[in-house]
Amino acid sequence: PAAVRAGVEAIIGRHGHIDILVNNAGSTGAQRRLAEIPLNETDCDLDDEEALSTSVANLLGMAWHLMRILSPHMPPGSAIINISTIFSRAEYYGRIPYVVPKAALNTLTQLAARELGTRGIRVNTIFPGPIESERIQTVFQRMDQLKGRPEGDTATQFLATMRLYRANDQGQLERRFPTICDVADAAVFLASDETAALTGETIEVTHGMELPASSETSLLARTDLRTIDANGRTTLICAGDQIEEVMALTGMLRTCGSEVIIGFRSEAALAQFEQAIGESRRLAGESFIPPIALPIDPRNPSTIDALFDWAGENTGGIHAAGILPASGHEPATQVIDIDDAPVEALLHDEIVGSIIIASRLARYWQAQRIAPGARAREPRVIFLSNGAGTAGNPYGRIQSAAIEQLIRVWRHEARSEERF
Amino acid sequence: PAAVRAGVEAIIGRHGHIDILVNNAGSTGAQRRLAEIPLNETDCDLDDEEALSTSVANLLGMAWHLMRILSPHMPPGSAIINISTIFSRAEYYGRIPYVVPKAALNTLTQLAARELGTRGIRVNTIFPGPIESERIQTVFQRMDQLKGRPEGDTATQFLATMRLYRANDQGQLERRFPTICDVADAAVFLASDETAALTGETIEVTHGMELPASSETSLLARTDLRTIDANGRTTLICAGDQIEEVMALTGMLRTCGSEVIIGFRSEAALAQFEQAIGESRRLAGESFIPPIALPIDPRNPSTIDALFDWAGENTGGIHAAGILPASGHEPATQVIDIDDAPVEALLHDEIVGSIIIASRLARYWQAQRIAPGARAREPRVIFLSNGAGTAGNPYGRIQSAAIEQLIRVWRHEARSEERF
Repeated sequence: PAAVRAGVEAIIGRHGHIDILVNNAGSTGAQRRLAEIPLNETDCDLDDEEALSTSVANLLGMAWHLMRILSPHMPPGSAIINISTIFSRAEYYGRIPYVVPKAALNTLTQLAARELGTRGIRVNTIFPGPIESERIQTVFQRMDQLKGRPEGDTATQFLATMRLYRANDQGQLERRFPTICDVADAAVFLASDETAALTGETIEVTHGMELPASSETSLLARTDLRTIDANGRTTLICAGDQIEEVMALTGMLRTCGSEVIIGFRSEAALAQFEQAIGESRRLAGESFIPPIALPIDPRNPSTIDALFDWAGENTGGIHAAGILPASGHEPATQVIDIDDAPVEALLHDEIVGSIIIASRLARYWQAQRIAPGARAREPRVIFLSNGAGTAGNPYGRIQSAAIEQLIRVWRHEARSEERF
Repeated sequence: PAAVRAGVEAIIGRHGHIDILVNNAGSTGAQRRLAEIPLNETDCDLDDEEALSTSVANLLGMAWHLMRILSPHMPPGSAIINISTIFSRAEYYGRIPYVVPKAALNTLTQLAARELGTRGIRVNTIFPGPIESERIQTVFQRMDQLKGRPEGDTATQFLATMRLYRANDQGQLERRFPTICDVADAAVFLASDETAALTGETIEVTHGMELPASSETSLLARTDLRTIDANGRTTLICAGDQIEEVMALTGMLRTCGSEVIIGFRSEAALAQFEQAIGESRRLAGESFIPPIALPIDPRNPSTIDALFDWAGENTGGIHAAGILPASGHEPATQVIDIDDAPVEALLHDEIVGSIIIASRLARYWQAQRIAPGARAREPRVIFLSNGAGTAGNPYGRIQSAAIEQLIRVWRHEARSEERF
């Protein structure tokens, strides 16, 4: 945000104001399965590969910072155009670092449209499909490799979802990818006064791609872990700072016959939790066996691995996980007229943090499955949101959009793995 | 369709081909609550009022006929633009004759985009919101009257859903309605080559209206009437030609303790049904009490009233209804490359027919409720679709879209009535 602020100051110093902001910059993100995503700079094997937090900062953070910092210099009637991707709503193998922040951007755009609408600023989204380019060929080739499919498979699959045939250079109608000019045309339209009445609107530049309806969203309902067949299993609760909630979940899971291991991301919460448990032990006497609570820190993924190691040595291993947000509280009610802190927290603690925990779990279970005598029961994971609803809850809504897409692609990748 | 065919022939005779088709024509439809909709020409009290079947023909039929009859004369790269209304997805009091055919048009447009896409023809939709005009003032005034609300109430309610403030003539930002120029700008864009990659796309010209999410669609699931508390009630089954289905439903409802009255729209089906019942009686002996089956014909609504009269004299009146489509079979798999018959059947037998049955039921129950000693239990109605899914089922999908919107507005009107 500091760099954005400096850049905006320089631009405003020269031009006085800005009428059109197109958030098109970004990066591609590492193209890897969830378990192999480079989480930190040190994980980046390939030369041009990008760490997860960098992708989230580039793809979501940059657009968000620009909207916050530039919009006070935009007069009524100005237009913001956020370039998303149709794949932010699709099963897109090996591209979680790209499509999860884009999914969050979609929801952020809707919230920004509401907040900036009162200032007369319009905020709209373009969803490009796969665009005719060398880049998409490289991306789809790599996807074919990751999936272990013959070359051309991914491209063929996506082409088949396009309803519109279009003439090629020889004038023959065929299914093909839209061009970068098609996207630019939509951007020019959304930047012009011809769209003075449009905000929160989405334009798909995809030749009419029809994506399969997906009911993964049901996973984001306020489940209570009861859906996990807990008996005889060990369940990991990844908590942030939610002490009461963790107490309740732990009690419920133990009643159902599950062992519980808790990973706390907040050290203060861990200390408070242990104090509360000490109190319980004092009341219940010697027979009380306290649940195990350990510190975890997604910024340092080895702390998560250490918890897995502990579980391997002291229990039958982890069979299920319930993942809570890093913070049990909404940081603010607005998404534009706010300072950096809640934005950085959502980007890095919530979104990057959730992906890192999921990545480590995926890697752990992947290793378990190929080990001799692997358990027959499939591991289960449930993401829990804060509170009953997320309706009036902007940060929760953005996070849910990210998690929904994380689940969609994770499932897709997991289904494909089963074929091996 | 004959008039459309003649018109198209004249145009093609002069111009050879057509590049752009904008389906903007139509009519407003009678502005009445479901129970009071003028079903036939003879019901039209007010001078300028339109019968239901005319509205459906104008708003859905005209666009459909034009797409079918004109598209063979449209070269690749041509554009069709269907003008819908944002209210086709909203609770829109007293305007079933307008928003139900528009809801069907939305789904038809998606199917046409798929079918015409292979010919390189694009089909897109514009959803205007309320447009700054005398007409919308008249419409909202009448809506206020129908709802028994103070003048300006409806306009205020819809304005409040708009996220975008816009400068008025004095340069002040305020919430206001989009203009007809805003809609025209979107139409020009969709007609131009700038949207060469867009099909099945929707552009809302609404100042960012946010409509409440609605789960009425759940009503369209394949319910089996078991959800009706049948015991001690009389249930009306409005059937088309589905004999086996009616037999099964009747048996199930009688097992649950409900009396059953069946209204058959097909006389052949009624005759077959009575033959089957005669067979049952022969097997079961004297003790068998056959269910009552009567003919109904929505084109002649008095036949429906006659059934209600019969029920009033011979039972405790009708407490619940299950409404089946007029036909148990999909007439075709395509929506463009077909002749007139399946289109006319869907327009008049299915969509108009469903609204007429619903209208008569609404009127009947309205009369019951104000009668002395009215039943405490609320009447229930369930629309049943053909078969298990409607995924590969174009006519079923269009009909479901219409029924979904019919239910949404009917419920909305019924909730408002409860206040009186």
